[in-house]
Amino acid sequence: MKTDLQIAQENTMDNIEKIARKAKIDPDYLEVYGKNKAKIDLKIMDKIADNRNGKLILVTAINPTKAGEGKSTTTIGLVDGLAQINKMVIGCLREPSLGPVFGLKGGATGGGYAQVVPMEEINLHFTGDMHAITAANNLISAVMDNHIYQGNELNIDPTKVVWKRCLDMNDRTLRSITIAQDKKTNGVERKDGFIITVATEIMAIMCLSKDLQDFEKRVSRAVVAYTYDDQPVTVGDLKVEGAVTLVMKEALKPNLVQTLEKTPVFIHGGPFANIAHGCNSLIATRMALKLSDYVVTEAGFGADLGAEKFFDIKCRYGDLKPNVVVIVATARALKLHGGVPADQLKEENVPAILEGIKNLEKHIESIKQYRVPYIVAINKFSADTQAEVNAILNWCKDNGHRVVLSDAWASGGAGAVDLAQEVVRMCEEDSKFEPLYDLDLSLEEKIGTIVRKIYGGRSVIFSDRAKAQLEEYKQAGWDKLPVCMAKTPNSLTDDAKIVGRPTDFDIHVQELRISAGAGFVVVLTGNIMTMPGLPKDPAALHMGMNEKGISYGIF
Amino acid sequence: MKTDLQIAQENTMDNIEKIARKAKIDPDYLEVYGKNKAKIDLKIMDKIADNRNGKLILVTAINPTKAGEGKSTTTIGLVDGLAQINKMVIGCLREPSLGPVFGLKGGATGGGYAQVVPMEEINLHFTGDMHAITAANNLISAVMDNHIYQGNELNIDPTKVVWKRCLDMNDRTLRSITIAQDKKTNGVERKDGFIITVATEIMAIMCLSKDLQDFEKRVSRAVVAYTYDDQPVTVGDLKVEGAVTLVMKEALKPNLVQTLEKTPVFIHGGPFANIAHGCNSLIATRMALKLSDYVVTEAGFGADLGAEKFFDIKCRYGDLKPNVVVIVATARALKLHGGVPADQLKEENVPAILEGIKNLEKHIESIKQYRVPYIVAINKFSADTQAEVNAILNWCKDNGHRVVLSDAWASGGAGAVDLAQEVVRMCEEDSKFEPLYDLDLSLEEKIGTIVRKIYGGRSVIFSDRAKAQLEEYKQAGWDKLPVCMAKTPNSLTDDAKIVGRPTDFDIHVQELRISAGAGFVVVLTGNIMTMPGLPKDPAALHMGMNEKGISYGIF
Repeated sequence: MKTDLQIAQENTMDNIEKIARKAKIDPDYLEVYGKNKAKIDLKIMDKIADNRNGKLILVTAINPTKAGEGKSTTTIGLVDGLAQINKMVIGCLREPSLGPVFGLKGGATGGGYAQVVPMEEINLHFTGDMHAITAANNLISAVMDNHIYQGNELNIDPTKVVWKRCLDMNDRTLRSITIAQDKKTNGVERKDGFIITVATEIMAIMCLSKDLQDFEKRVSRAVVAYTYDDQPVTVGDLKVEGAVTLVMKEALKPNLVQTLEKTPVFIHGGPFANIAHGCNSLIATRMALKLSDYVVTEAGFGADLGAEKFFDIKCRYGDLKPNVVVIVATARALKLHGGVPADQLKEENVPAILEGIKNLEKHIESIKQYRVPYIVAINKFSADTQAEVNAILNWCKDNGHRVVLSDAWASGGAGAVDLAQEVVRMCEEDSKFEPLYDLDLSLEEKIGTIVRKIYGGRSVIFSDRAKAQLEEYKQAGWDKLPVCMAKTPNSLTDDAKIVGRPTDFDIHVQELRISAGAGFVVVLTGNIMTMPGLPKDPAALHMGMNEKGISYGIF
Repeated sequence: MKTDLQIAQENTMDNIEKIARKAKIDPDYLEVYGKNKAKIDLKIMDKIADNRNGKLILVTAINPTKAGEGKSTTTIGLVDGLAQINKMVIGCLREPSLGPVFGLKGGATGGGYAQVVPMEEINLHFTGDMHAITAANNLISAVMDNHIYQGNELNIDPTKVVWKRCLDMNDRTLRSITIAQDKKTNGVERKDGFIITVATEIMAIMCLSKDLQDFEKRVSRAVVAYTYDDQPVTVGDLKVEGAVTLVMKEALKPNLVQTLEKTPVFIHGGPFANIAHGCNSLIATRMALKLSDYVVTEAGFGADLGAEKFFDIKCRYGDLKPNVVVIVATARALKLHGGVPADQLKEENVPAILEGIKNLEKHIESIKQYRVPYIVAINKFSADTQAEVNAILNWCKDNGHRVVLSDAWASGGAGAVDLAQEVVRMCEEDSKFEPLYDLDLSLEEKIGTIVRKIYGGRSVIFSDRAKAQLEEYKQAGWDKLPVCMAKTPNSLTDDAKIVGRPTDFDIHVQELRISAGAGFVVVLTGNIMTMPGLPKDPAALHMGMNEKGISYGIF
């Protein structure tokens, strides 16, 4: 069987200028990066401002297994499926982080015959956006620690610094460190830590900003530390928001690439779906909506995390109105939710599927509350048996849910034509989208609403630390922001091991974190990993280029 | 008076395709990055392999003041001057580091009317080479610490790790840190430190490699740590050289840009001139020589550091034969060497110049030992008086040295036409270039030769640590490598405060460091800064973009 990389390498790409023409992008706004990548000048928005918005389709999923359920693959398949039925479509995906590429997870550009290309470049440096975020984030840290060292006029308490340095690397040894040791001229010693670039607030801000000016305003508001008397200190207080915006000016331009079937795709921004909101950039989504009749996008993890934040954070800030939601389910994950151990998921087990399907049922109920038409897409794996697939199809039909089989991994767009046709029909229906909660509610009420209505839980238990923060955040005026839930993606609860559709459980809020620049309050329900580690045998040890310059080992 | 940035912004650039045509680069090998930057595919070397090499001109200088003496400005002026007299010419410059841009020093793209553009982009992320180096370097660190954490089969002693992490940032607090604290799952705790990206061995290797294969071989050899029984552990032992090469594959392609006068320039690679050899990449220089009749390049700091390493390291490894050396001198620096305090350099002082000119005299004598024709270029500053300039001109003429006045800062290429004409004539003379020392000499003998013949010193005093290392390095077979001297650039001695042309001084070698991948032994003569800090009022606090999107504050 061919690897994703081999399939991608055998593909012949169209020149990016041709892809841009397909996306109706005027060449004046195209900034080509090599032959197969381009950035789009934000000035194009003035020219296309009066265009009618296209239809917006969100791809989400049930709670995934550790290996993921092929949301990107289904998204790319749907993009190509829409193109195959002659619809004008642009996909909007997230940028992969370099760290996981060297670890276990591999790339994030779809799979099989539903991929975006150039696969290697997208997974490595792409157009440099991640690196710009790293530089911008660490510039703030350097300026802050320099401020403390050079007299500390802002009265920053070095033990209350919340802004972390970052690298786009899986490096566990940088999670908890002590800096500025040994010499006074090395600065003021304090505890610190690095997070991975995709977990930074700069990434979240990039993805929620409308333009460069909005980005600068938001960055100014980001909290970096507290003073000795517990007042927040912001990037604006450090006066570095101008330099940070300058560093980010190219990164804020959406990146244009293509699918294996030469359909245009924007890949832009990729915030972690735990500590942040897990969606591609608002700038890219809005641009795509103005350029195209159909825009297909995705949100990280299952509907409880990704879709909830897509609706309640991204759509709210971006004034977006989603038209259709596609809920991806797989036989494999449904078996897991039906109680099958992880090492037995390849064996046929229809009863387990019918038990595990309650997880899907809950996500359907959740999506219904946003009043957007939805459809279930079964992402077919080669190991799935016909009986298993039929079980899912029949359950959906019996319960009045639209459902189609997607075979995008094996067949590309042709495998998603049925899905595409359904989606087109559904786009003509009336989406009555509205967010789940009002911003005027208190933070407790917002969190409680999500826990009850989306997770299906009973109540929220706040730690003493979180209780104190609720009060502090209210004093600071942060209580009117949306909340960004940080929770395990593998369960509807805050315990990764509890599968299926649990009820009568509580969610434990350990701590809040303010992302005043991005514009949300992060609600931590357990330990959230913001700097992954490498496995015993990292993918990096099996990568390289052969004597012909052909790369191998990226998957 | 206009700032460099204003002059650059008022300039209208030619499309990079047009610049490539001027440089006779076949469009098939051109990878455009936006409208004004491009990378050149290394495969072009096969096509142009049989071309005759052009003439190679090195621009070096006397010992500089802290502000620099305009070596880049003179280099760019000479490139444009050669173009003005209808010579086919390509400049080869170093890539600026992002860190100093935010600090005090500002950009590194020339000055006045002798600049390379797009100035802001070259000074910010450019085509991402620095970021690729950062990622490659830190991937090695992450894999090494992961190796130690996951069982440490290679028996690495965590207290003997020599490979440091890096950021392209001025951040003093990262010089000395402790990593992997608080939890066992955070790795094995040890002391560590970050260096600035341009000080990494990856940068040095990139600049001394002939191609990707050579790069991979060299990276494999780089020493990252020692075992408990003091055996070197290399990147190859960690098995990560393939991934590192993959990360660097775009970075190894030279970057093409243009001067304000639209002459082609390669800007590629920029190793620190203290811890490394301070020259642009060999790949770019060799490509330029095959493409053009004249290639003008520069080496960091004064001739004692930059030119010596250019000749003895870069030319040796690259089999280059330099045809002409331009030695830049300024009235300002000569006054400094004549004993004038730094705050009185703007006042006319001909006697001080005639005293300080002994510094120039020593550098001329040094260059003569390499048997390459040389010329002194007086880089004119607006504050220079006619009497001062005449004093330098007359001294040179009276002592039989060729000399011209260069006014490139104020007049661009037109200000360097005299220099260009002299250089063209000198290129027809016979360069009998040979390196200063044989590789077969011992490390002590090589260091002693440089100290006596280039610095004009008496002898070398090795610390006990250095003495022990001399023996270790001999055992390891590293004693046949060239040496890379790390010394203050401000003096011919190892004491920055001693100006002019001191004699009867000793050089104190504190420590050796092996760069087995780059292929040299670093000889440390004092504290060498490998991670700068920000000043009290960093340039970053005065940068940004106005409402029209025009950037300001980069200088």
